[in-house]
Amino acid sequence: MTIGLDMMGGDFAPLEAVKGVLEYFQQGNSSATVVLIGDESKLEPLLSEYKIPADKIKVVHAVQVIDMHEHPTKALKEKQKSSIAIGFQLLAAGNIDAFISAGNTGAMLVGALFSIKALEGVLRPTISTIIPKENGGTGLLLDVGLNADCKPEQLNQFAIMGSVFAQTILGIENPKVGLMNVGEEEGKGNILCQATYPLLKENKHINFIGNVEGRDVLMDKADVMVCEGFTGNIILKLAESLYDIAQSKKIQHEYFDRFNFENYGGTPVLGVNKPVIIGHGISQAKSFKNMIVLAQKMIDKNVMQRMKDELV
Amino acid sequence: MTIGLDMMGGDFAPLEAVKGVLEYFQQGNSSATVVLIGDESKLEPLLSEYKIPADKIKVVHAVQVIDMHEHPTKALKEKQKSSIAIGFQLLAAGNIDAFISAGNTGAMLVGALFSIKALEGVLRPTISTIIPKENGGTGLLLDVGLNADCKPEQLNQFAIMGSVFAQTILGIENPKVGLMNVGEEEGKGNILCQATYPLLKENKHINFIGNVEGRDVLMDKADVMVCEGFTGNIILKLAESLYDIAQSKKIQHEYFDRFNFENYGGTPVLGVNKPVIIGHGISQAKSFKNMIVLAQKMIDKNVMQRMKDELV
Repeated sequence: MTIGLDMMGGDFAPLEAVKGVLEYFQQGNSSATVVLIGDESKLEPLLSEYKIPADKIKVVHAVQVIDMHEHPTKALKEKQKSSIAIGFQLLAAGNIDAFISAGNTGAMLVGALFSIKALEGVLRPTISTIIPKENGGTGLLLDVGLNADCKPEQLNQFAIMGSVFAQTILGIENPKVGLMNVGEEEGKGNILCQATYPLLKENKHINFIGNVEGRDVLMDKADVMVCEGFTGNIILKLAESLYDIAQSKKIQHEYFDRFNFENYGGTPVLGVNKPVIIGHGISQAKSFKNMIVLAQKMIDKNVMQRMKDELV
Repeated sequence: MTIGLDMMGGDFAPLEAVKGVLEYFQQGNSSATVVLIGDESKLEPLLSEYKIPADKIKVVHAVQVIDMHEHPTKALKEKQKSSIAIGFQLLAAGNIDAFISAGNTGAMLVGALFSIKALEGVLRPTISTIIPKENGGTGLLLDVGLNADCKPEQLNQFAIMGSVFAQTILGIENPKVGLMNVGEEEGKGNILCQATYPLLKENKHINFIGNVEGRDVLMDKADVMVCEGFTGNIILKLAESLYDIAQSKKIQHEYFDRFNFENYGGTPVLGVNKPVIIGHGISQAKSFKNMIVLAQKMIDKNVMQRMKDELV
């Protein structure tokens, strides 16, 4: 198993990426070779300094970097020798089994959508977020911003992909799927929800429990919560702000610590045929380590194939 | 000035409504006659017990009550002698200047939309919520559920109505208006936002500051935040749940206390030609008092006329 990591992506690259790789190998369960993609002259001294085991990595030199604020499509096209472009080239060619970057989010999305293929039958890939539940559990919300406008059929697919992810990666057996909505009963909501509800109800691949409302997001009602990317993105960013507010007001509570989304490593793109994980720009060592662990788990559990099987 | 109050609406009616009326008269600034609409046989003993000043109230007997779970349109039609139906009859006839109830929300909305008139030119009335800002200030979010699907022109009107409300009632001079969205720059977002942004930008009646994201909701970026009722309702109910979570986890902090939406009394329907205020079902005395105070303020400041002037 081979996992590609963009060493130049994120505010604290390459140092924190190198430290993350070390942490990955130091935890007991590392089984992948990590392909480090980036500027060799910057990487080599750090790899020596942090004593990264040479037999477990491979360095692929990239002379260019796509900056955080570059136009995604333009940058990917013009910077073919950037770490992100090379990562997707390696992924598409089958030289790596997964690709991770904390760099330009737009470029990662464009790369995921166009360099590798969507799973057969998938209308649109999606991105999700972990939701820290009030009872200590973990939920999944999707889409959180890749698809601002959606059709009912897309939401129906998100429900399946979210269920598979919740089962295989979050370890939730028979995850409860809820439709984000503004009322409890069938028939409530906007036009999209009214059209989506019957599809979810008929869907044999998921355990649909009905509508969930804003008050249920942090509660135990549903494990997988489905919405278009507009609503999902607003919920995600509001949730992220709670951590900052708790910090600034010196409210110390383990629950709010769980709103530190850096802990979760990154967001996998679901619905494409190979794992692509997009990290926060502010990723530190722990995030990089967690992203590599997530990629390994997604490969191990054959998540993409299982999604494909359920989507048929 | 005459304010009508449904004494039978809400889980703790009529007792808490009576106590709320008393609190209203006990605070220094009461200038309205309050018309108490409800079952006389239940009201009279309480009015005596709580020594409600007889010269400042008027009791209007209502033999029926619309229950919390009745179908709004059906109930309003069939229960013409219910406290809510009578309230709207009095309001439409000009016998009261405002109407308040913590009863069946749907019936209150139907009554507001069909018993009295929308302001001239208003496409759709709207409901809003107070947002407790992290810096101690107060924001306004609208729509929060009356209009799950919206057109750009409606959002543009919500921006104007929200601005007038923020100025006159919240006391915010030249309120900053933001469009709830999933990105900062013009052109970002779903189809609705992309079409709404240019309207807000051209709107001379508001101080438009651009897009606001989920992370800005609780921050100081915008005073008035505009969205369709689907997103707004999810944000509102998520915010409400924060208070419950803080309570259940025994997180004591004045900031989270401000997420106790009961404190704010109720939600005025904006865009109709007279003040209608809808309270929480769980309203207690303080909520009832605050709703009467809000109605008085809305009449005093001539909020509806000012909205009408700005909407032209």
